[in-house]
Amino acid sequence: MELKTPEESKTTLTDLVLPSETNPLNNLFGGELLARMDRAASIAARRHSRRIVVTASVNHVAFNKAVPLGSVVTVEAKVSRSFKTSMEIFLDVWIEDRESGRRTKANEAIYTFVAVDDMGNPVPVPGIDPQTKLEKDRFEAALRRKQLSLVLAGKLKPKDATELKALFE
Amino acid sequence: MELKTPEESKTTLTDLVLPSETNPLNNLFGGELLARMDRAASIAARRHSRRIVVTASVNHVAFNKAVPLGSVVTVEAKVSRSFKTSMEIFLDVWIEDRESGRRTKANEAIYTFVAVDDMGNPVPVPGIDPQTKLEKDRFEAALRRKQLSLVLAGKLKPKDATELKALFE
Amino acid sequence: MELKTPEESKTTLTDLVLPSETNPLNNLFGGELLARMDRAASIAARRHSRRIVVTASVNHVAFNKAVPLGSVVTVEAKVSRSFKTSMEIFLDVWIEDRESGRRTKANEAIYTFVAVDDMGNPVPVPGIDPQTKLEKDRFEAALRRKQLSLVLAGKLKPKDATELKALFE
Amino acid sequence: MELKTPEESKTTLTDLVLPSETNPLNNLFGGELLARMDRAASIAARRHSRRIVVTASVNHVAFNKAVPLGSVVTVEAKVSRSFKTSMEIFLDVWIEDRESGRRTKANEAIYTFVAVDDMGNPVPVPGIDPQTKLEKDRFEAALRRKQLSLVLAGKLKPKDATELKALFE
Amino acid sequence: MELKTPEESKTTLTDLVLPSETNPLNNLFGGELLARMDRAASIAARRHSRRIVVTASVNHVAFNKAVPLGSVVTVEAKVSRSFKTSMEIFLDVWIEDRESGRRTKANEAIYTFVAVDDMGNPVPVPGIDPQTKLEKDRFEAALRRKQLSLVLAGKLKPKDATELKALFE
Amino acid sequence: MELKTPEESKTTLTDLVLPSETNPLNNLFGGELLARMDRAASIAARRHSRRIVVTASVNHVAFNKAVPLGSVVTVEAKVSRSFKTSMEIFLDVWIEDRESGRRTKANEAIYTFVAVDDMGNPVPVPGIDPQTKLEKDRFEAALRRKQLSLVLAGKLKPKDATELKALFE
Repeated sequence: MELKTPEESKTTLTDLVLPSETNPLNNLFGGELLARMDRAASIAARRHSRRIVVTASVNHVAFNKAVPLGSVVTVEAKVSRSFKTSMEIFLDVWIEDRESGRRTKANEAIYTFVAVDDMGNPVPVPGIDPQTKLEKDRFEAALRRKQLSLVLAGKLKPKDATELKALFE
Repeated sequence: MELKTPEESKTTLTDLVLPSETNPLNNLFGGELLARMDRAASIAARRHSRRIVVTASVNHVAFNKAVPLGSVVTVEAKVSRSFKTSMEIFLDVWIEDRESGRRTKANEAIYTFVAVDDMGNPVPVPGIDPQTKLEKDRFEAALRRKQLSLVLAGKLKPKDATELKALFE
Repeated sequence: MELKTPEESKTTLTDLVLPSETNPLNNLFGGELLARMDRAASIAARRHSRRIVVTASVNHVAFNKAVPLGSVVTVEAKVSRSFKTSMEIFLDVWIEDRESGRRTKANEAIYTFVAVDDMGNPVPVPGIDPQTKLEKDRFEAALRRKQLSLVLAGKLKPKDATELKALFE
Repeated sequence: MELKTPEESKTTLTDLVLPSETNPLNNLFGGELLARMDRAASIAARRHSRRIVVTASVNHVAFNKAVPLGSVVTVEAKVSRSFKTSMEIFLDVWIEDRESGRRTKANEAIYTFVAVDDMGNPVPVPGIDPQTKLEKDRFEAALRRKQLSLVLAGKLKPKDATELKALFE
Repeated sequence: MELKTPEESKTTLTDLVLPSETNPLNNLFGGELLARMDRAASIAARRHSRRIVVTASVNHVAFNKAVPLGSVVTVEAKVSRSFKTSMEIFLDVWIEDRESGRRTKANEAIYTFVAVDDMGNPVPVPGIDPQTKLEKDRFEAALRRKQLSLVLAGKLKPKDATELKALFE
Repeated sequence: MELKTPEESKTTLTDLVLPSETNPLNNLFGGELLARMDRAASIAARRHSRRIVVTASVNHVAFNKAVPLGSVVTVEAKVSRSFKTSMEIFLDVWIEDRESGRRTKANEAIYTFVAVDDMGNPVPVPGIDPQTKLEKDRFEAALRRKQLSLVLAGKLKPKDATELKALFE
């Protein structure tokens, strides 16, 4: 199967924070941002695989910055690495200040999607050929995350998670 | 006031067509697409003006292509020309086929926004410096559209709409 | 095919402006009003044709009056003229003041719908027999709008748009 | 305080049944219809009182007819009787068949609203002067319903509910 | 058919009051609470019958307490009595104060659901075996409510509504 | 500050999967489930702390089981451990089969919330006193997750993450 670049699946979702999506401090609910990132990630996964895709997992997501009502939020999603039937999607989230126009990084997140056929059975997806320094770093790290995920699910023994184990030595 | 390029306000909103947005033929409601374009256009107008912006008018919009449930729809908005306190936003809408990855133009639309202060009073906005052939064509045509709009609103006599009148000769 | 009066398709949608539909100035989003008018217009078109109907185009819409949060908004839609398979719907939008009860005209808009069969193919619709002075005026003007629409779509040469051309002489 | 006719508060909300409002049998959720009737009733109460209004109670509502996806539903609300600070709103709900255009009564419902000031304290409302036979019947019956409501709330002894008691003799 | 206890159908829906669900006084719309109770009641009815269920009626509901924006609302639903194919669901609604943690009863409501097969035809449901004092009281009262409902629908003569009539003597 | 048990913050959100929340395979969107879990977790955190709470992070979440349209989904959230100003919330998600009534575990997830004052500044929260075997296990594991989170955020050197490091030896 051919290789594709992360750029080919790049998906940009720029939208407003609406009043119905905010908490008592007038900031975007964490849950709403998770849902919005899920939609952007699913489109990136679909562009890479040209298949129906379903969310398999969400990696650790930290909400470092509050996103106030009325903000313009940009979610950018790219496939960072693919495995046999699954794809890791890396998401960057920015908000921008209306008056200065300055963009600030608000979040990063990593979702995993699986490509499936009409019956819901997993199907193979193309590989990834990272181009930029950042894409290469994320491609490398994806393997460690995959191992961590397998360890946490009890499907891989910690001592066999070679790349991950190296971190703690 | 400085000039800005259309590219500086470019806004991309790629999202799915959800089941709650479809009509009995399982296509996106025209009204939902109008609302989605309004949000993208308002962000482009805000990026250009760095002000609160409100919808002033929607130009003639033709729905040439049905947008089926589950489609990925990309709305791209750019300021095409600005006047004293108002901005014309040109929108291009594409849908893409999941299996072939092919993008098809589904719609074009033109919205006008006005920049306002906190009290809702109009405030001046930067001018536009079009760069590409397409941006220049749209910049020119915006003046004719402005005249047509004024004629339709009864604020300009048809015979004084010089650029527009030329069309019919 | 029989003729129908505009009154037979009259559709009234009176509803509140909810918090989830407002912009940072606490007024109804232009895009939400466009969506609401689309639903009312589609019902009027359906009542006239007794067919599935799809939005074909939206004419120039001006947002002259802000519609504040908590307002009662009345959208009234009537078929103003029909062509072979399409219908022009004229919409009047009012808001009313809670304390005085006074109704103010907030907007007018014109949508075009096409009647289709289950496969999405256009089907003929009944003609319109306007009754009141206003209905007759709108019926007449609909032809000029149709010509303008064809000119803008490049399907009619400006010099052949007889009724429209007369405007500029 | 002056009297008003039921017609003066008449509120019509005609809208589509959208896919997001249906149950597994593809019919409108009872709960969604209750919410839609509440919005129409609140507008009628507001038109009668020109005050902020809040739902006080919902009378017995029977769902006799399923309302299928894609239906056009018309909710019509009128104030049927007012008491010191409260108003009884009578709602009639119709659905219409697309092909025949025939309207069928789907439901009736009765809501009670209270008029309040900005602090939420009840304020007096105008009386009702019923005009038609149906309006007069509903006006009469409203008193029995008021007594039943007070009996059920334990605020009136059954033997003192004169009009209501007469029913059982 | 076997008997079930009310506890077996107990359904708890604890959720926030979101900004899109509030009226001009910043309290939950009555209509939204009705819709939320309808969803909880339908789950209780489904748990009791293991069938598709549809709302048949809503008994008198009083809104005694405003539910402010940001509240935590708990809706608890239990089948209180079943008849041949229908079930009466008793709902208790509490709100809780964030700072003190104190729960306050906000509402009670009674819905009736009917169990149906895939074609929408009514099917028999299990009986109810009440356990606690409160469950037994509600079970008894359900019969009087059933009679009242039949009287109001004109399907039972008031003088034959034995349990109900006793109330007025 | 006093200790509280996990049971004191237990929050149950049982609700239907609505048509507007499903993907092309007619299963609940991953993103919608993430949003629903966020609301339940925020209520548990609020019950524990009696403060305004904001989402700080979402731990690794695996979507092992598809949740079909029309399902009854129960999200149960409990505070599993608290740190100075933050709380770890453990969520269990079940779906139940309508016909058999059987409940199946669909998901687990772990969210972290921070308690804040009205200005958004972190404030201390009560500690946790786990009671059952499961609560104690989750309480223990929470410390390793906290270390992993700090390592991933670059705020703790892997070799200092004592509990976590032990896993790989």
